[in-house]
Amino acid sequence: MASQTSPASVRSSAEIPLRPAKATRKDAGVRNGRIPIASHRPSVPGGRFAPSAFVGEAVPFTVAAFREGHDRIGVHLRLTSPSGVSTLHRLRPLEDGFDTWQVSVALLEQGTWKFRFETFGDDYATWRHAAELKIAAGVDPILMREMGARLFDGAAAEKTRPADERAALTTAAHTLRDESVDDDAALVVVRDPGLARAFADRPAVSLHTLHEENTLLVERERAGVGAWYEFFPRSEGAERMPDGTVRSGTFRTATKRLPAVAAMGFDVLYLPPIHPIGEVNRKGPNNTLDAGPGDPGSPWAIGSAAGGHDAVHPALGTLEDFRAFVDAAAEQGLEMALDLALQAAPDHPWVTEHPEWFTTLPDGSIAFAENPPKKYQDIYPVNFDNDPVGIRTEVLRIVQHWIRQGVKIFRVDNPHTKPLQFWEWLIRTVNAEHPDVVFLAEAFTRPMPMRALAQSGFQQSYSYFTWRNTKTEIEEFFASISDETADFMRPNLFVNTPDILTEYLQFGGRPAYRIRAALAATAGGSYGVYAGYELYENVARPGSEENIDNEKYEYKFRDWEAAEAAGDSLAPYLRRLNEIRRAHPALRQLRGLHLLGSDDDAIVAYAKHLPAALSPTGESDTIIVVANVDPHSARETTVHVDSELWGLPRGHDYDVEDLVTGARWTWNEHNYVRLDAFAEPVHILHVKARS
Amino acid sequence: MASQTSPASVRSSAEIPLRPAKATRKDAGVRNGRIPIASHRPSVPGGRFAPSAFVGEAVPFTVAAFREGHDRIGVHLRLTSPSGVSTLHRLRPLEDGFDTWQVSVALLEQGTWKFRFETFGDDYATWRHAAELKIAAGVDPILMREMGARLFDGAAAEKTRPADERAALTTAAHTLRDESVDDDAALVVVRDPGLARAFADRPAVSLHTLHEENTLLVERERAGVGAWYEFFPRSEGAERMPDGTVRSGTFRTATKRLPAVAAMGFDVLYLPPIHPIGEVNRKGPNNTLDAGPGDPGSPWAIGSAAGGHDAVHPALGTLEDFRAFVDAAAEQGLEMALDLALQAAPDHPWVTEHPEWFTTLPDGSIAFAENPPKKYQDIYPVNFDNDPVGIRTEVLRIVQHWIRQGVKIFRVDNPHTKPLQFWEWLIRTVNAEHPDVVFLAEAFTRPMPMRALAQSGFQQSYSYFTWRNTKTEIEEFFASISDETADFMRPNLFVNTPDILTEYLQFGGRPAYRIRAALAATAGGSYGVYAGYELYENVARPGSEENIDNEKYEYKFRDWEAAEAAGDSLAPYLRRLNEIRRAHPALRQLRGLHLLGSDDDAIVAYAKHLPAALSPTGESDTIIVVANVDPHSARETTVHVDSELWGLPRGHDYDVEDLVTGARWTWNEHNYVRLDAFAEPVHILHVKARS
Repeated sequence: MASQTSPASVRSSAEIPLRPAKATRKDAGVRNGRIPIASHRPSVPGGRFAPSAFVGEAVPFTVAAFREGHDRIGVHLRLTSPSGVSTLHRLRPLEDGFDTWQVSVALLEQGTWKFRFETFGDDYATWRHAAELKIAAGVDPILMREMGARLFDGAAAEKTRPADERAALTTAAHTLRDESVDDDAALVVVRDPGLARAFADRPAVSLHTLHEENTLLVERERAGVGAWYEFFPRSEGAERMPDGTVRSGTFRTATKRLPAVAAMGFDVLYLPPIHPIGEVNRKGPNNTLDAGPGDPGSPWAIGSAAGGHDAVHPALGTLEDFRAFVDAAAEQGLEMALDLALQAAPDHPWVTEHPEWFTTLPDGSIAFAENPPKKYQDIYPVNFDNDPVGIRTEVLRIVQHWIRQGVKIFRVDNPHTKPLQFWEWLIRTVNAEHPDVVFLAEAFTRPMPMRALAQSGFQQSYSYFTWRNTKTEIEEFFASISDETADFMRPNLFVNTPDILTEYLQFGGRPAYRIRAALAATAGGSYGVYAGYELYENVARPGSEENIDNEKYEYKFRDWEAAEAAGDSLAPYLRRLNEIRRAHPALRQLRGLHLLGSDDDAIVAYAKHLPAALSPTGESDTIIVVANVDPHSARETTVHVDSELWGLPRGHDYDVEDLVTGARWTWNEHNYVRLDAFAEPVHILHVKARS
Repeated sequence: MASQTSPASVRSSAEIPLRPAKATRKDAGVRNGRIPIASHRPSVPGGRFAPSAFVGEAVPFTVAAFREGHDRIGVHLRLTSPSGVSTLHRLRPLEDGFDTWQVSVALLEQGTWKFRFETFGDDYATWRHAAELKIAAGVDPILMREMGARLFDGAAAEKTRPADERAALTTAAHTLRDESVDDDAALVVVRDPGLARAFADRPAVSLHTLHEENTLLVERERAGVGAWYEFFPRSEGAERMPDGTVRSGTFRTATKRLPAVAAMGFDVLYLPPIHPIGEVNRKGPNNTLDAGPGDPGSPWAIGSAAGGHDAVHPALGTLEDFRAFVDAAAEQGLEMALDLALQAAPDHPWVTEHPEWFTTLPDGSIAFAENPPKKYQDIYPVNFDNDPVGIRTEVLRIVQHWIRQGVKIFRVDNPHTKPLQFWEWLIRTVNAEHPDVVFLAEAFTRPMPMRALAQSGFQQSYSYFTWRNTKTEIEEFFASISDETADFMRPNLFVNTPDILTEYLQFGGRPAYRIRAALAATAGGSYGVYAGYELYENVARPGSEENIDNEKYEYKFRDWEAAEAAGDSLAPYLRRLNEIRRAHPALRQLRGLHLLGSDDDAIVAYAKHLPAALSPTGESDTIIVVANVDPHSARETTVHVDSELWGLPRGHDYDVEDLVTGARWTWNEHNYVRLDAFAEPVHILHVKARS
């Protein structure tokens, strides 16, 4: 429908020629415009923060708009890119009973966009509606024809219209006024689809109303889309010596693992903290309090005589080794993400140099982290209130230091235990200089603090995904992340972490690992895997939700190749999932997941669709995922699909191909599915255009 | 709990001593406060308009508030009345998983209030929580005791505390530091409820954070609460003459009906337009196009040679008669509401004096109202865009004219067919000079325009009530009006109007009239009855939802006394409903309706509760309504009540009295109920305190 070449800043299926943003006189002191609007999206509840999106994301712009009486209205969206390119887009009414109008646009330029809605009386639509009914009923036919002719005269006089359109409009006006043309023939003009198209692109506007300007922050694509892999570099290439001690892996030995991670198709490699680890009160295996001399300690107990947050653990190598490691990863297409954990081991240099950055108790001691009556004696939490300026300056220095080493992604440890206003300040300050830097909030807490962190600037957020395992839980979760919170929160659906090995994985067997990976890789924009998942590591420390012999406190020795050679690795499946993600732009979207009905209480089904006009490939992309989330059974059911989602009228056959197995079926509205958890628990179906 | 006399401006169960509104340094450019908040209520979605309430309404002030880590917080509400009196109120956490804090306050002064939330670290609560766990576990007891002693020292030094409290705090500090006091005895101090109370009223505050100031418009009580009665004055005292013609009722004859309306307990008397009625294209009986010479026409076809919107219909009397009628009503406790219908009969003086206030068609004629292809030839709609200033000036003049005649309530006819910004301007302009004037929006349209009218200034709104008849519909509707829209919309639950005689009333028999009146009178703050309802007038014009022989087009002759004497009138029931409303302040509330469960699909149950501290009587008031909404059956079921709503722990017996029949029962959590639609379809139960 677009009648001009889109600028490179947007993709839209409803772009129309730009027109000047002049409007009816503003009515001083009156907040309603002549044709009013109510709430809109994208927006953040409460209105204090601006919504956000990522480059290439198809963002639905939605507004409630209405006018008095029965006359027809139109709604336009005026977008202005960060570099100042303006485009105009036509919204369509959703007919949902709430006067909702919507258009989806993919924004291609990073930075702060401006957007505003424009409402107007659609004089052509108003006339056409009345003329069609009244002329057919013989009510005021001459009057209706003359009114139409005047409308067409006015449109034909617009110099910006294509010449052929102007000629057609003039002819139509003439026909309507021609007394020798009977009313039936006049009705053909009223219903002329070509004239309707002319007015769709350049409407006959009255009472043009410009509404407030809003902003939308568009971040780089990696803020919203990516497949993450987490490993401990000290384990990659660690060797057990003949004397039983372990020689730590280093950045150099870990470099050897990079091609395999890249070959699995991951985009981001996230490392737990790489800094010196405290010696005082160091934790031993399985979180015990008595570390032996060979125990490496938890990387999150940061700082020792060897340095603090700006240093590299000597056992991993030097700062130069780290830079080489970052470069080697980049050559493999892997971007490095570092951990930012603002806490200190008791022997962190901060403790002696800046005791005011901690809490000193009445007995003169520094307060450990605690959850009364428990104390965590390997960690001092930072007190952000004694010297807020000093702390901010230091953290900013550390972040800038790592940015200089080539790091642009920070996975922030427990941000919900530090002041929200600190994060808002830090992220804004860093992004002002480095807009590409992405902060991921590792906050597992109540919904409001998690949302507040995202609203305050975090580009990405850990989520409740690992604890959403039943069909009902999964559906509710997917609906929430793809709609309710999508204007400000981009969840990263990690399937496991060093802290999280859920009961579902502990007791779900290998099917559980497959199911969770497929859901994570297809439902959100970003997902993550912590090393060992592909080896089905599923034994927990008794009474906990973590792996036994947790890598946080010791080295892990894993034989990736042997497992894969024995057919005992999930790596090939992860590789295929990431291939599918790369081939299908619909899966690189967060918004617009559509839940589908199924008649079984363990079969979850959803579709993601990206129309051709919004797709980077220029082709429409539609994926249907059907997952049996009961890892202990085979299930059969009927899945209900509304093909109007991708523009195919209901009741028509279409072909689907399972992108994992290659199987093909013909589908329609109601489709039989059998999913055996022990064979292939998830269909990832590509909807094929029928030739 | 309040330790001081409340100023007359509020009623609150959580008022605490005022303290200065000083807070931690504001962090320039950072939008989060040190202890942040997220969305709050009262508020209007979209944030462009201020929320509103009415005098005496118990308004829940709600905010999501949280801080980093585990330390405890407190939240205060600072209210400033229009006359500048500030009060402070303690919010309590709702423990709903969404960090919601709430306090309800009844605002007693009309005008624009300011309110802001304040958050702070609650150092006493943080210490008490840690001390209780740690001392009991033998972890750092000396340290915890010293920290408590310092906290108490600080509080004891506050000169604003009562002397006995300061002494108790000093003693507690001494005890905690006394080495001869063992830890078990120290724990008694930690748990001391008297000390907890001292800190509840005057908390030990750290990181005090002041949030943005918001406004809340509090309108007079009648904006939210009232029982309305509607009659056509021309019918009251109309007489059929021997020659078959009718002599119109007048303001003088209608005056005779006032005592009966007042005796039924109504607060507001609403009159359809009282202006001259157009002669041109006048409608005849049952909306026919051929009015006879004796047909009085529709009062909404305003204007004739006798005058327009500022004139009184000569058949009703003079302007002086109208003023006398207003005065007579006031003497009976009835406030007058006039209709404001901005449209003109073809012979309205405006049409010749100001043809620019209408739409002129290409053929030179003025456009009738229409819904294509239908035309309404007795009405010209006003065009607000040709001469907006002229129209505004004229309408303002008319409204001010009627205000001078003693009218302070306007029922606005079809406001959704006029520009929203016109209403926003009119209501703001009128209220600036006359804050007591109430506008009721008669808009039956889609939800968004209805809400927008309320948000833009209408004090009161007609609602979907008449079309919500099944249990599910009623529950959803009551939940919506008492919560979702209550910050900006005050619905008037008319049970019928000259335009609305629903199928439920047409076919539900007399039980239907009783059921609908009881629901309307008890669920919202305002409700209304159009004359004839008490006579069970239930015959519709075939194919329509209006009464046959509609009073809009003719005179009605009703013998109220005869019907009541024959026991064939609902008037005694309406009288009792209005008595109950006057006696029970819980029923004069809009917010805070609590749906109760029942096991029958036609039995609706809900409770309204006003705590003693918020009640004008100083006594707690709790009402439980149980209604069988199936007018054709007797039903039995169990009604489930959570008595914690009014502070009685679950599982306790309590007494209820049916305020209609006087019957008494003992109730508990699960209560058997039998409701026979043909006998008494609704219980209105008053919960009695047990002696």
